[in-house]
Amino acid sequence: MRMRNKPWAETYLREHVDIVDLDCDHKQQVAMWFEKKQPIHIEIGSGMGKYITTLAAQNPDINYIAIERDKNVMIRVLDKVLEHNLKNIKLLCNDAVVLTDYFLPHEINRIYLNFSDPWPKTRHAKRRLTNHRFLEIYKQILERDGEIHFKTDNRGLYAYSLESMSQFGMYFTKINLNLHQEDEGDNIPTEYEHKFSEKGSRIYRMEAKFHHNFEHKMNKD
Amino acid sequence: MRMRNKPWAETYLREHVDIVDLDCDHKQQVAMWFEKKQPIHIEIGSGMGKYITTLAAQNPDINYIAIERDKNVMIRVLDKVLEHNLKNIKLLCNDAVVLTDYFLPHEINRIYLNFSDPWPKTRHAKRRLTNHRFLEIYKQILERDGEIHFKTDNRGLYAYSLESMSQFGMYFTKINLNLHQEDEGDNIPTEYEHKFSEKGSRIYRMEAKFHHNFEHKMNKD
Ligand SMILES: C[S@@+](CC[C@H](N)C(=O)[O-])C[C@H]1O[C@@H](n2cnc3c(N)ncnc32)[C@H](O)[C@@H]1O
Ligand SMILES: C[S@@+](CC[C@H](N)C(=O)[O-])C[C@H]1O[C@@H](n2cnc3c(N)ncnc32)[C@H](O)[C@@H]1O
Repeated sequence: MRMRNKPWAETYLREHVDIVDLDCDHKQQVAMWFEKKQPIHIEIGSGMGKYITTLAAQNPDINYIAIERDKNVMIRVLDKVLEHNLKNIKLLCNDAVVLTDYFLPHEINRIYLNFSDPWPKTRHAKRRLTNHRFLEIYKQILERDGEIHFKTDNRGLYAYSLESMSQFGMYFTKINLNLHQEDEGDNIPTEYEHKFSEKGSRIYRMEAKFHHNFEHKMNKD
Repeated sequence: MRMRNKPWAETYLREHVDIVDLDCDHKQQVAMWFEKKQPIHIEIGSGMGKYITTLAAQNPDINYIAIERDKNVMIRVLDKVLEHNLKNIKLLCNDAVVLTDYFLPHEINRIYLNFSDPWPKTRHAKRRLTNHRFLEIYKQILERDGEIHFKTDNRGLYAYSLESMSQFGMYFTKINLNLHQEDEGDNIPTEYEHKFSEKGSRIYRMEAKFHHNFEHKMNKD
């Protein structure tokens, strides 16, 4: 998501340090930043934030964190948080590679990845948010039984993610190969989803978990 | 694949006991039945056999086994084997549940599943050829590094198989979410594939392996 650079974006974000972390001020203690101690769900690459702010408004008993490295996009998330006066959401303006700086091991209860940049060239595979480099990070911060929920319109990225995640030792608890035909009415479309499904693109979705205790699983039917 | 019952089907198959096993005559020694000792690839639910007989003709250095429980369908495989005078293929007329009766552990080098019956009702899930009940069998007969190659037009069966196989501890080495758009020219269409793709159905494909030595894999990038 390339937005025109807005020189005032950083100034605006810095006016709201109670909501936005720009300089890793909450190292290892993001959880303590919230008013209430309750489960934490994060979205990585939240873009303009319609998805996570809708969830935050619907679920006051969950704490949400939007992670987005682009300040010019993050201002749109902040707009929504302020407009709806949401108390259970914080914004981290940083790259997902440094996530372990913010969180204690297994502190996160769910991770959302929506319409992540596909990086279609093989030489850029390391940048995809479902590359093993990132799965290592997710495994470290996610509770053992926690889920990753992933949506995309990009067939190549979806196929790559099924390969990468299963090779890493993850398994899928729910697969939707045509979400908008299979949706049970609880889907929240993101900004990208809206744009691409208008164009007629098929939307793919999955829920995934990490195998731990692997030998045990293998003997189960 | 329901074919009209042909009373002469069994008679015809029994005339060719050098090619067809109807009564588990080759218990634990199917491999020794072939002229040459070479890798064994099997197809389960081969239907009329265009796929596996084409492979057998193309690859004389591999031994093939077609497994099909319906005699009225198996006669069409036998027709093709006789017509092309193929020496590197045998036919097992039996249900896949008894496969371990025929094979020694890890004796098989590859398994093909093409357009397996989808059994869409949840209460029939145990009959699907990618149910854990069957994966247990495949794991036992397949060499440790062996692959399962799976094709289907059925979105529900494909999604189920991704879930079931990953939950069982398998991983995907190749995923095609729209095979006929991604085909590199080496795809051999089966009878069902031909029929469904003519109707415009999307064809899904995957290659999968079993995780063994799991801890080791987890530390690899
Ligand atoms: C294609 S947009 C999708 C935005 C939103 N999830 C949606 O569905 O509308 C991807 C977003 O992820 C952000 N992003 C990509 N890689 C990231 C990373 N490594 N860390 C943080 N954000 C990242 C980009 O800046 C961009 O805003
Ligand atoms: C839908 S047809 C597909 C045939 C062929 N593979 C194709 O693509 O044209 C499925 C075939 O699998 C066979 N089959 C289903 N379950 C089986 C089982 N448990 N053991 C052996 N054969 C089975 C059926 O008899 C049927 O011929």
